[in-house]
Amino acid sequence: MNNGKHIASAFDRDLEGIQALIMKMGGLVEANIKDASIALEERDVELAERVRKADKIIDALDVQINEEAARLIALRSPTAGDLRTVLSVMKISTNLERCGDYAKNLAKRTGVLAEMSPIDGAGASLRRMAREVEDMLRLALDAYMQRDAVLAETVRHRDVDVDQMYNGLFREFLTFMMEDPRNISACMHLHFIAKNIERMGDHATSVAEQVIYLVTGEMPDEARPKGDVTSRTHIGVEDD
Amino acid sequence: MNNGKHIASAFDRDLEGIQALIMKMGGLVEANIKDASIALEERDVELAERVRKADKIIDALDVQINEEAARLIALRSPTAGDLRTVLSVMKISTNLERCGDYAKNLAKRTGVLAEMSPIDGAGASLRRMAREVEDMLRLALDAYMQRDAVLAETVRHRDVDVDQMYNGLFREFLTFMMEDPRNISACMHLHFIAKNIERMGDHATSVAEQVIYLVTGEMPDEARPKGDVTSRTHIGVEDD
Repeated sequence: MNNGKHIASAFDRDLEGIQALIMKMGGLVEANIKDASIALEERDVELAERVRKADKIIDALDVQINEEAARLIALRSPTAGDLRTVLSVMKISTNLERCGDYAKNLAKRTGVLAEMSPIDGAGASLRRMAREVEDMLRLALDAYMQRDAVLAETVRHRDVDVDQMYNGLFREFLTFMMEDPRNISACMHLHFIAKNIERMGDHATSVAEQVIYLVTGEMPDEARPKGDVTSRTHIGVEDD
Repeated sequence: MNNGKHIASAFDRDLEGIQALIMKMGGLVEANIKDASIALEERDVELAERVRKADKIIDALDVQINEEAARLIALRSPTAGDLRTVLSVMKISTNLERCGDYAKNLAKRTGVLAEMSPIDGAGASLRRMAREVEDMLRLALDAYMQRDAVLAETVRHRDVDVDQMYNGLFREFLTFMMEDPRNISACMHLHFIAKNIERMGDHATSVAEQVIYLVTGEMPDEARPKGDVTSRTHIGVEDD
């Protein structure tokens, strides 16, 4: 990134190459999150299989980015701010790779769910949650390209919405399970899917936090806003 | 680490300092995994609270290790093998921090579970699973200290055992849920706990894979042995 303080150096050119890979990887991950959740909603087993295949490309990009970043450090001996930038790129790549893994896991469970009786409205609810996370990821990567800490901060706040959607789905699935034991198996998978989407949101937030760190020099101070209260939730007939 | 090829340099001394922090962090994480699972089995809410507090020290160590590693790279401009070592230390720190987070999540759910009717044998089963993961982490860190790729490989294989224990618990908890809807709430928490312990096992395996990478120069080739089949599992009355 030429910030006007010095002419474009070999380091800058190398870094731009790695950043182009990050944006390519980010686009593939967003597409896989979208496709995985559509496959889930429409019980489209072939689309789910394409998601699983596409994940291999995402993994390969993560390996490539890490290798090129290490080579860049070894060759150019960057100091301070430039080094921080390269290390951040590596962390962002890891976050994207984890999002990709969760999308692949979603696709795996879709195949199983397609053979069970559907749970009313579950696919649509999960699609909404996934769309929120796709947006967060897109904004986090835009914020990275533009080195925009304010935009990155908005991503952190949207994570609260995702956590609250998760809370709602957690309760909704519990009611289906309590209504009819034959729903339990499908609801277990839906629960794990909802948790995985929530985790994707956490990783998108981590990308945004890396942007804030890059721009300001410090990780965001205040605790990340937490909306997921299900680990403290008492739900069940015992409380009546 | 003095490998006999050169006298101990400033880089070596700095690296030893960081490795001492990793071993300290690893010890704290192992202790927290142990305490969290004992707290769960014995429904000990005070011990669970101590786990949550201890996690802050683990997080602080991760921050410190990352900062000192970045400073080391900036100051000493290591190349090739030495750079790979420092980058590996940073990855290991991240894996340890994630294990710590899962132990903290376990402790949070313990407080909730302590107020529900216990599920027979669940605490003991989860304690056994957690003990397996503590062992894996201890071995992975020993392998790191000794740069022992053979020992690291054994950790990868033990992850299959942990995945299989998870499969068994998944099925066991499903039966409790189908037996009596009043068990559903507690079983949901137990499911998530089992999944978190399985994920801790994955992170211990990642540490072992970093050791193999450090020693051999390559990440392990063959796909990691996968024992967790629950995402492909059809369980339920529909299959009868």
